[in-house]
Amino acid sequence: MEIRDAAPVAPNDDEVRLVVAWCGICGTDLHIFHGRMDKRVAIPQVIGHEMSGTVVEVGRKVTNWQPGDRVVVRPLDWCGDCPACRAGHSHVCMNLKFMGIDSIGAFQESWTVKARTLHRVPDNLDLKTAALVEPLAVACHDVRTAELAPNEFALVQGAGPIGLLIALVARAQGIRVLLSEINPNRLALARQLGFEAVNPMETDLVALVNERTDGAGADALFEVTASMPGAASMTQTVRVRGKIVLVGIFSTPAPVDLHRFFWRELRLLGARLYTPDDFDQALALADTGNMPLDCVITNTFPLDQIQTAFASLAGNPTAVKTLIQCSQS
Amino acid sequence: MEIRDAAPVAPNDDEVRLVVAWCGICGTDLHIFHGRMDKRVAIPQVIGHEMSGTVVEVGRKVTNWQPGDRVVVRPLDWCGDCPACRAGHSHVCMNLKFMGIDSIGAFQESWTVKARTLHRVPDNLDLKTAALVEPLAVACHDVRTAELAPNEFALVQGAGPIGLLIALVARAQGIRVLLSEINPNRLALARQLGFEAVNPMETDLVALVNERTDGAGADALFEVTASMPGAASMTQTVRVRGKIVLVGIFSTPAPVDLHRFFWRELRLLGARLYTPDDFDQALALADTGNMPLDCVITNTFPLDQIQTAFASLAGNPTAVKTLIQCSQS
Repeated sequence: MEIRDAAPVAPNDDEVRLVVAWCGICGTDLHIFHGRMDKRVAIPQVIGHEMSGTVVEVGRKVTNWQPGDRVVVRPLDWCGDCPACRAGHSHVCMNLKFMGIDSIGAFQESWTVKARTLHRVPDNLDLKTAALVEPLAVACHDVRTAELAPNEFALVQGAGPIGLLIALVARAQGIRVLLSEINPNRLALARQLGFEAVNPMETDLVALVNERTDGAGADALFEVTASMPGAASMTQTVRVRGKIVLVGIFSTPAPVDLHRFFWRELRLLGARLYTPDDFDQALALADTGNMPLDCVITNTFPLDQIQTAFASLAGNPTAVKTLIQCSQS
Repeated sequence: MEIRDAAPVAPNDDEVRLVVAWCGICGTDLHIFHGRMDKRVAIPQVIGHEMSGTVVEVGRKVTNWQPGDRVVVRPLDWCGDCPACRAGHSHVCMNLKFMGIDSIGAFQESWTVKARTLHRVPDNLDLKTAALVEPLAVACHDVRTAELAPNEFALVQGAGPIGLLIALVARAQGIRVLLSEINPNRLALARQLGFEAVNPMETDLVALVNERTDGAGADALFEVTASMPGAASMTQTVRVRGKIVLVGIFSTPAPVDLHRFFWRELRLLGARLYTPDDFDQALALADTGNMPLDCVITNTFPLDQIQTAFASLAGNPTAVKTLIQCSQS
């Protein structure tokens, strides 16, 4: 990572220019930093996509935004013409360009984006917390995918940033939540947030889930570990006809107990990114002020220390979400 | 297999005694024959569950059936009290006893069963064809699980008895069907039934499905091979947000491309057995006379040749469905 000077990019007709306030470091950003996505990410590239900021300049045809508007960006650039877009699922566009990976991102003071990507930040929501809206929208999408009812029971495998946010969103909807995590710092944070959280290497998770559900099993499981043990265990704790929402990004095929899918009529539901509705829901949830989102923010750095911020995350067991302050706006 | 004499079992209050007409050999029966289910099946055991027959005796409290009624049995003995039963899913009861595996089955002249397992055979449906209603109900359950609309595109992986019946049920609902199968005899039968059917070792299945679906991919895939290549390929031909109905019974965990589930938001739906509605639908479909069900029946044997019938199926590439005639009724 290095800091370079760049001229602000004037917005085209359908674009706006933003001053970026805060931008979080996503697991994907870390993968890029470590070179694991070199095939996809052309270097040099400005990355970053979990941002909040303020409109400073608008294109000629942009009518619904004006300088001073506080916004978050839904960092998706969809084609509008592939079978997925035509079916109304532009967030999983077959030609999707993800801003901050496939095109210029938000770890900079000035970012110029299409106006269609913007969502308004409510007046009472500060821009630092608003930088969590993007991962919170992921969690909203995951919980929405599970279609749970209040008082149903969900197991979240993995209590990193997304796992914790899934747990918070689910709890806000009256869903009972158990978290499974092996990192003691993350376990402690989950408990501090009021959740039951256990280490599956120390606790018999199947027995515990059965105890909590009168022997039925979990109504839904969120697999957020993207690990071989996670793929192996995900089928063992879910009730007959229960759902497994696949959130973690597996880099290689994983052995899965397909017999259990047959036997219990389980359902595996892939969940990726978010729709505009998920972003709106995340903004509304953040705006209630009832979610302890700030607890997830464990580290902040100014933009000129971004190299240190990334380097210090490698193997750091205490970090959950790190935010970069890109400007004083 | 051996034939033994046995006294007819008088029905209890809630039971009926049937004379079995025909009973098909299921893949599961073959597994039992080859000793692969010795842990579950206590020997000696009468197996068989794909049957048709006639009521000859009714228990004291049975009011809706009488001698002479032509019936098929939905061979499920559920507990009524587990979480799955209480949630209305008794076909996947957590204590399910499958008749003909976990209790006495239908490869005999006289079979005594609970009246609640019976479905009436329509007057114009012959008992030989009616013996296909049980596997046809499996196919109805699988197709129902996929929730497809007319003119949507389905790929069926595996053109054995269940794969062919799934294809027939889907086609009857206006769904476009492609079959994938490596056995040339089964490929020929699928084509004789009017289906497009290809050998995936000779044809690029991904390219063909994309060609048939304007590049989108299949709306649903039915995985009926229970093979490692089947598990590997099932994720590659399905459209964004498409469904994979898992029908095949995998005996060991299989590597699955979970990244593809995430990337395309795929859905894997386990499907097992059938509900009463599936049985009713299968009977109604068979009753139309429009489905070439008899084409699936490739071999018949009298009951006293059941050992020959089973033995001749091992590695037999031309057999699809073999029926045993258990009586002349």
